[in-house]
Amino acid sequence: MELKKPYLLFLGDAADPLAAKVAQGIKTWHPEYCVGQYRLPTCNADCEVDDLSIEQAVKAGAKTLVIGVANRGGVISQEWISVLVEALDAGLDIASGLHNKLTDIPELVASAEQNGRALFDVRYPTQSYPVANGKNRKGKRLLTVGTDCSCGKMYTSLAIEKEMKAQGMNADFRATGQTGILITGDGVSVDCVVADFIAGAIETISPENSSDHWDVIEGQGSLFHPSFAGVTTGLIHGAQPDALVLCHEPTRTHMRGLIDYSVPDIKTCMEANLAAAKLTNPNVKFVGISVNTSQLGEKAALEFMDKVESEFGLPVVDPFRQGVSRIVSKLSEV
Amino acid sequence: MELKKPYLLFLGDAADPLAAKVAQGIKTWHPEYCVGQYRLPTCNADCEVDDLSIEQAVKAGAKTLVIGVANRGGVISQEWISVLVEALDAGLDIASGLHNKLTDIPELVASAEQNGRALFDVRYPTQSYPVANGKNRKGKRLLTVGTDCSCGKMYTSLAIEKEMKAQGMNADFRATGQTGILITGDGVSVDCVVADFIAGAIETISPENSSDHWDVIEGQGSLFHPSFAGVTTGLIHGAQPDALVLCHEPTRTHMRGLIDYSVPDIKTCMEANLAAAKLTNPNVKFVGISVNTSQLGEKAALEFMDKVESEFGLPVVDPFRQGVSRIVSKLSEV
Repeated sequence: MELKKPYLLFLGDAADPLAAKVAQGIKTWHPEYCVGQYRLPTCNADCEVDDLSIEQAVKAGAKTLVIGVANRGGVISQEWISVLVEALDAGLDIASGLHNKLTDIPELVASAEQNGRALFDVRYPTQSYPVANGKNRKGKRLLTVGTDCSCGKMYTSLAIEKEMKAQGMNADFRATGQTGILITGDGVSVDCVVADFIAGAIETISPENSSDHWDVIEGQGSLFHPSFAGVTTGLIHGAQPDALVLCHEPTRTHMRGLIDYSVPDIKTCMEANLAAAKLTNPNVKFVGISVNTSQLGEKAALEFMDKVESEFGLPVVDPFRQGVSRIVSKLSEV
Repeated sequence: MELKKPYLLFLGDAADPLAAKVAQGIKTWHPEYCVGQYRLPTCNADCEVDDLSIEQAVKAGAKTLVIGVANRGGVISQEWISVLVEALDAGLDIASGLHNKLTDIPELVASAEQNGRALFDVRYPTQSYPVANGKNRKGKRLLTVGTDCSCGKMYTSLAIEKEMKAQGMNADFRATGQTGILITGDGVSVDCVVADFIAGAIETISPENSSDHWDVIEGQGSLFHPSFAGVTTGLIHGAQPDALVLCHEPTRTHMRGLIDYSVPDIKTCMEANLAAAKLTNPNVKFVGISVNTSQLGEKAALEFMDKVESEFGLPVVDPFRQGVSRIVSKLSEV
């Protein structure tokens, strides 16, 4: 599953900017993939690219309409269907990361077939993956891990890939969730893989490579999240990482969605991740800590990061405030 | 998915007794579920129950024909089909734990529909499971964990359930793999669940219960097996175990299927399992070690077990040689 580029970003009837965060993510990380956006009259989001009709988007070279908006419950709204059919008729593929599938909507399936176009439900794996073989493979890999879910692993990974490329390094972001897949056009939504194949799927998307090449693999979940730690464990083992970056959101009071579970302290979390990662790569080490300080003022943020940096002796950055160049510099030691 | 009992064990054309180990397992643990066996002329296995025709099995009360034989590659042999269709016509359901599905064979699907019978491919979940909620639940749970895959977790769990019931305790074996499901008639093949729902599936099959009740949950894989540790992690978290039993095969030279990975020592393995299990039950403890000494002579086996017992101060038994009563006695301390 590799999406054809460039994209027309479909913002639909996004109620607010947050509802269009997938489209915003694509625009932020890969503006060169975006020929424009399509908005319905009630849309309250704006990715600050050209507003195009389907016809204009096709003329501008668009190959795929990407649904960049999330409705409540991951539903594909009835109001969208006529636009999506128009896009298929005009020669575009459609990609979606929503829970509900494009391929479950008869009008879309019929139109895609008739026009020879593809519908990509990127949340759902379309290929089968092997059981992981655990074999040591060439090339280097960096993996982001977290004290919790949704604390900045995708953002940090994309920032690291971008910084590495800017420094002339040979690097590729490897997406493991639907938003990352839509941003990059490829990857696996690892939490939707059958349990036996979690690690095997990650081995598949980050294969052996030249010895100067880095895969920057997007982590998922947390070893300390009782709902999802199985996914995280398999992901760590399959990634066979040389370098780990811990992602942390310092104001969170409990694990996401589970009020009975407190967030682990950074030291405990790093030790557990190192222990898990050493199974498939005994030389793995942490190269930095990425803190999402969006809920803190600048002073509090900097104080927190200083404290963590002096405790662990690693670069501690907020990618959004400071970039990740200090973490990338550390990779020369791996 | 609960299979109707009793069963007719289908041994087919089993090349040797090992090929019929699923049928043998059902006979060993639940002889009361078995009205008889059906063998093709070339069968080289024998569960030592009555050989019955389909007609005789139905008269004897059989409700489900269970495929108790494994072919190379988990294939449903062409030679079996006419017998299976005869069974459906005669009013039996069919259950299979093979990789290839009964429901992918048009003759069987047609006959099942026509006769109003069910086809159970127990390897494949038929219900959807929730994301685990991690909430503390009443009732007690014992989980078997292992230094490796295939080192006696199912056998140990079944032996513990049997011993607990013999002692008048309130206990239920909870199957997490296809053989266990066929033996007990219910459960979930946890390595075939979508990754996000591993822990949630285990919470579902071992729900809140009365405070004197024990679920004896069959473990899978190993935290030290790089192909499957994700499954093991989710299973441990979902099980929320009060008691752990470590299963070990002392002659194994490397992790199953992976010659580059050595088997962890018992202490390291116990520590890792305790750390993982404490996330959802801080009071969890080991209550025993179950050693599969089938590859050792009696003297070497007893010496090995003595050594381990003196090292860890826990009951160490081979369930096959000595039973598990010493482990069950330890449960009063939990």
